[in-house]
Amino acid sequence: MTDDGTTTSTRSAWDAPVRTLLRARPGVALADVDASATPGFDGRKADAVPALAALGTGLSDLQERLFAHGRTGGERSVLLVLQGLDTAGKGGIVRHVLGMVDPQGVALRAFGVPTPQERAQHFLVRVRAALPAPGRIGVFDRSHYEDVLVPRVEGDLDAAGLDARLADITAFEAEVAAQGTTVVKVLLWVSPGEQHARLRERLTRPEKHWKYDPRDVDVRLRRPAYEAAYADVLAHTSTDVAPWYVVPADRKWYARLAVSALLHDALADLRLRWPEPTYDVATELARLDATA
Amino acid sequence: MTDDGTTTSTRSAWDAPVRTLLRARPGVALADVDASATPGFDGRKADAVPALAALGTGLSDLQERLFAHGRTGGERSVLLVLQGLDTAGKGGIVRHVLGMVDPQGVALRAFGVPTPQERAQHFLVRVRAALPAPGRIGVFDRSHYEDVLVPRVEGDLDAAGLDARLADITAFEAEVAAQGTTVVKVLLWVSPGEQHARLRERLTRPEKHWKYDPRDVDVRLRRPAYEAAYADVLAHTSTDVAPWYVVPADRKWYARLAVSALLHDALADLRLRWPEPTYDVATELARLDATA
Repeated sequence: MTDDGTTTSTRSAWDAPVRTLLRARPGVALADVDASATPGFDGRKADAVPALAALGTGLSDLQERLFAHGRTGGERSVLLVLQGLDTAGKGGIVRHVLGMVDPQGVALRAFGVPTPQERAQHFLVRVRAALPAPGRIGVFDRSHYEDVLVPRVEGDLDAAGLDARLADITAFEAEVAAQGTTVVKVLLWVSPGEQHARLRERLTRPEKHWKYDPRDVDVRLRRPAYEAAYADVLAHTSTDVAPWYVVPADRKWYARLAVSALLHDALADLRLRWPEPTYDVATELARLDATA
Repeated sequence: MTDDGTTTSTRSAWDAPVRTLLRARPGVALADVDASATPGFDGRKADAVPALAALGTGLSDLQERLFAHGRTGGERSVLLVLQGLDTAGKGGIVRHVLGMVDPQGVALRAFGVPTPQERAQHFLVRVRAALPAPGRIGVFDRSHYEDVLVPRVEGDLDAAGLDARLADITAFEAEVAAQGTTVVKVLLWVSPGEQHARLRERLTRPEKHWKYDPRDVDVRLRRPAYEAAYADVLAHTSTDVAPWYVVPADRKWYARLAVSALLHDALADLRLRWPEPTYDVATELARLDATA
């Protein structure tokens, strides 16, 4: 661990910076993405365990620096946006990646179908209200992107309406970034075969029955429409201040490693040092020791 | 793991149910509590590691059942109230105990000094707004108890005012319990010597400077007043539906084990089974397989 909190040992497993490898490429056809690939990770599942633990140690240190920064007047924060088709593993990322850092530093928000009240507002109102406070890692489990994906696939908004929302999103994210929030957007990409296996598991294991929704099959049948909708989102909203990363997610261990590395690198970029004391240390030591 | 989610293997390290051992005793003098004790745990720090891991596995399973219950119309939730003097280890409990379960199932709220707006309301308004939703484990890092402890020690409320607040709290917690929330209240109890050592560490380790506040020493000097205030709180608000537990906290590993066990037992008492499917499994399997 170097003084600014970056880890070097965890880099060895990666051939190249994960942000370069996974950054959404212009014009990508999602149907052509190999969801079982492990870009840049020269190892197997067994190698991922120590690699994830090492990343977790670094991530935990960086998160604590960010938290300390927020507690001492700092303005920086991080927002991880998680999108993906059903079973892509968003919940697993929350559990296994964010689960490695202090829960006090994480602000998690899951976005469901908008309520009637939310529908009556601009679609970004509920999103803005959920932005992370300074010092926090905010996590959106689904997000404002559902407000363009679903209307597009369902045909509830015309092209002009969709374009307006995409433009609103780009402007919103630029504003969020300018206010000190590092935005990291992750599309977890699962193959049709793996999605079938995961949905099947929900039906065949009684302790997973509650996770299954009959509508999941309806959505699955619309996969080509979702692929086109996501391609459009990637083409219009992957900016330098709020980039999209496409993370192959058929291997859960790889997706967790990759998102950990993306989050780690975003935090390391902040180069946060431990805050300087706002009091005189020697004076306080003397005061404290007088109470011993 | 039995079918209702209770673990038996983790019980072996405990001589008696942790709830019986740690339940606040009427008329307890907190100055007499041995903060370095490990009631009921027949082991040392090295034994605590596997014991905590085993409790964590059980806790994680129970938390997921609670979450599933909440997602399928269930009304139950759990509220863990954490109180303690500075450095007692509330943050460590959040990190190391709640860190063992899925972050999606935990709703953490830290209560600071009330804002002017909060002061203008009844003291329970902000607390009520922070109660856990069905299916969640809510955690209060400090709580409505600060609204009786601080005014008592600072002399900001007279005896009648304090009594009124204690009565309000008892009624509030009974209402919360009646609505389906299991309330578990933990007082982490640290000795003056250990508190001195922990505050000193914040002053001597630069990466902990941000955790130190010069007011911590002022509060430390008022320890006898806080002990009396806490004793009063325990005497008036430890009820069968919202009991207080006094957890010796000089040994962090013991406090984490004990709170894990308290939380585990509270969840196990709910005897939650996995929800029954609300759809026909065979029909859905056929629909799904038709998409393969």
